[in-house]
Amino acid sequence: MNSLPKINLDRLQATIDTMAGIGAKENGGCCRISLTDEDKLGRDQFVTWCREAGCGVHVDAFGNIFAIRAGSRPDNAVVLTGSHLDTQPNGGRLDGIYGVLAGLEVIRTLNDHGVRTERAIAVVNWTNEEGARLSPGLTGSSGYAGDLDLSLARRIVASDGARFGDELERIGYAGTFSRRALDPIAYVELHIEQGPVLEQHERTISVVEGVQGVRWYEVELRGSDRHAGTTPMADRQDSFMALARIAQSMRQAVLAIDPDVRFTVGRVSVQPGSPNTVPGFSSFSIDLRHQSTGLLNRIENVLAAKAHAIGIEEGVETAICRTMIVPPIEFDKSIVETVVSIAQSAGCPSMRMNSGAMHDACRLSKVTRTAMIFVPSRLGISHHEDEWTAPDDLEAGANVLLRTITSLADQTERQLNVVAAEDVISAHPRSLER
Amino acid sequence: MNSLPKINLDRLQATIDTMAGIGAKENGGCCRISLTDEDKLGRDQFVTWCREAGCGVHVDAFGNIFAIRAGSRPDNAVVLTGSHLDTQPNGGRLDGIYGVLAGLEVIRTLNDHGVRTERAIAVVNWTNEEGARLSPGLTGSSGYAGDLDLSLARRIVASDGARFGDELERIGYAGTFSRRALDPIAYVELHIEQGPVLEQHERTISVVEGVQGVRWYEVELRGSDRHAGTTPMADRQDSFMALARIAQSMRQAVLAIDPDVRFTVGRVSVQPGSPNTVPGFSSFSIDLRHQSTGLLNRIENVLAAKAHAIGIEEGVETAICRTMIVPPIEFDKSIVETVVSIAQSAGCPSMRMNSGAMHDACRLSKVTRTAMIFVPSRLGISHHEDEWTAPDDLEAGANVLLRTITSLADQTERQLNVVAAEDVISAHPRSLER
Repeated sequence: MNSLPKINLDRLQATIDTMAGIGAKENGGCCRISLTDEDKLGRDQFVTWCREAGCGVHVDAFGNIFAIRAGSRPDNAVVLTGSHLDTQPNGGRLDGIYGVLAGLEVIRTLNDHGVRTERAIAVVNWTNEEGARLSPGLTGSSGYAGDLDLSLARRIVASDGARFGDELERIGYAGTFSRRALDPIAYVELHIEQGPVLEQHERTISVVEGVQGVRWYEVELRGSDRHAGTTPMADRQDSFMALARIAQSMRQAVLAIDPDVRFTVGRVSVQPGSPNTVPGFSSFSIDLRHQSTGLLNRIENVLAAKAHAIGIEEGVETAICRTMIVPPIEFDKSIVETVVSIAQSAGCPSMRMNSGAMHDACRLSKVTRTAMIFVPSRLGISHHEDEWTAPDDLEAGANVLLRTITSLADQTERQLNVVAAEDVISAHPRSLER
Repeated sequence: MNSLPKINLDRLQATIDTMAGIGAKENGGCCRISLTDEDKLGRDQFVTWCREAGCGVHVDAFGNIFAIRAGSRPDNAVVLTGSHLDTQPNGGRLDGIYGVLAGLEVIRTLNDHGVRTERAIAVVNWTNEEGARLSPGLTGSSGYAGDLDLSLARRIVASDGARFGDELERIGYAGTFSRRALDPIAYVELHIEQGPVLEQHERTISVVEGVQGVRWYEVELRGSDRHAGTTPMADRQDSFMALARIAQSMRQAVLAIDPDVRFTVGRVSVQPGSPNTVPGFSSFSIDLRHQSTGLLNRIENVLAAKAHAIGIEEGVETAICRTMIVPPIEFDKSIVETVVSIAQSAGCPSMRMNSGAMHDACRLSKVTRTAMIFVPSRLGISHHEDEWTAPDDLEAGANVLLRTITSLADQTERQLNVVAAEDVISAHPRSLER
């Protein structure tokens, strides 16, 4: 393994620094919101670097930029990597950017060592992953995966009133490259974790097996507005005290089922909101995440039961309604195993993980074999200027990406299918057991 | 006792019905907000009735109306009763009104039977008890008690922009009667309970011993905004989950100390309020009420300890701040005992109670011997068109008021003082014990 080429950390860091200089913020962070002037400058810089690295650069109708390094075989089933260059308004310099520029560094490294892969390798910058100005995000990858119609996407209105289509043309990135011209055999996205788990486990690499399913609920509690002074405690139908008990009891029950679940009450409303009135109406949101649909179903029943039982005890009418469901995503098992063994042979302490956040890879998983690689985020901080990853970890992640991409670019279609088929057999009892 | 005169229920009800016709609402309630045209009409009607009953009618600079029935002794230390004729926007027909019109019925009854009391008896309508349009309320009684400067009161701005002083002149109720011209030896206010306690205990009369002290607190909880998907449950500083636990634990602790306490969380804020963000900042209000200052102090320490301990467990910074303190009020023990024995000899099932709401009597207690009498409110409903009290209870309350007023109007100053002094001796160990 030691004879294999390795990426140039100094060059990767210099590239990241240069990109971070476009839309730089005072405290080291970055504001390069999608389809703004800063985004255009960032894209131009990326295109320049890719051309310098000998790539053919193509832009599709969603503004996605594909930089393609030719392979030795004349088919177009490329291996795709990348992420996004756009940031949050108070974003860091790594979220998305690291994956795009590490992909560029992979190509530069192969160039340095004169390595020719069988398949072509492409690095992509997806448009508007963050959705900070043009909501929702994942626009470019959704469009590429056929989940979002182009005419619909072009009519998305920004928070400042501008339209996606107009802005894309304004910055000169409304292209004509066809998705059919690039039919990737695999997509691998390298990203910072944006959570604290790798750091806590002192691991360098996370092999991401999938993305948690998300369900949103809205819980409503109807009691009675009453005078805070004249109404004895035993005579109240206090919607807020019911809410407090229900939320706490739900969290307790959910953690008892699986400590790895995510249960978040983020929005709370208590009415009429007067300090001296027992509140007659309260509501709250639940964001529930887990990798297993079966477990999410089971928890859903527990949440409803808790709300109902405590509602009765508190004399409050309860209603719980599911407002959103995003099924869990499982990444390609063969690529996951490839990454696991590459990390192992490279001596990187690694662990398997499910992502709690959505990424462009979620969309890509609908149209090609997909996986993700995470590196640690200090204190789990992201979407914040304090976002930071140790240079050693940036280097390790880029090297694992390099080996994964070259390995995939040299595997035959048959090799990929065999691994996947073997794994499907063992996967079935596991999903039932859950 | 049976030979004593009794009030005329039919006449009292007809009087209440006539008053309820001024500002009548569709569902039987009343909108006669202070210093509106409806309030003027209600006042005019009251003045007419009082004059017809042979009273001298006087208006002071706060618009308070005093109807005085002369006594047999030529001093001016009258016995005062009454309440307020103004209502909430969706008010009932009894809150306040019952006390004023029962006072009028007392005078009419004494007239019917040709009873002459030693002291004069006065019935008062206090201006703007409710504070619905001109906030805060208790304006007339506060002014009378010397708690509110006239020039300040006249500058109070209504929700519709009008000023208290201008409105008082507009409706013709800015008078010149001097407080010094009416130095009452006692004030007794008859009122509906506005809570469910009498109804639940199947009692007709409540002898109100005092008004609960009120303390307001603001609790702030500082954690960290975190991604709802990427942040494991064990790594959160979730300000809302801390809030839910603290509020529930506070209620539990407070009820264990005394079930008669009132603990209300009426205003809750959870920030940033996004369903998929662990909320980094939350705050809530506490309205705490009890009759004993000692117990309020003790509870205050318990609240602070709970917030602190759970804050540490949840990894959240807590701050608790007292924003308001209204000391408990103790009514005159001699009048309380007088009312207790009158209710007993009249065969009315009675109980002692502390009021959870403020009344004009709270202000009067600063300047004269004061007590209150409550009658039941159906389901405890008040400040609502559904406010209702059974006719039998209205009759019993007015008869207890009649006997209390006549008893006080025939007692000498010495008699009143003796009862009060006796009670003070036994009261001391009780207050220490608390």
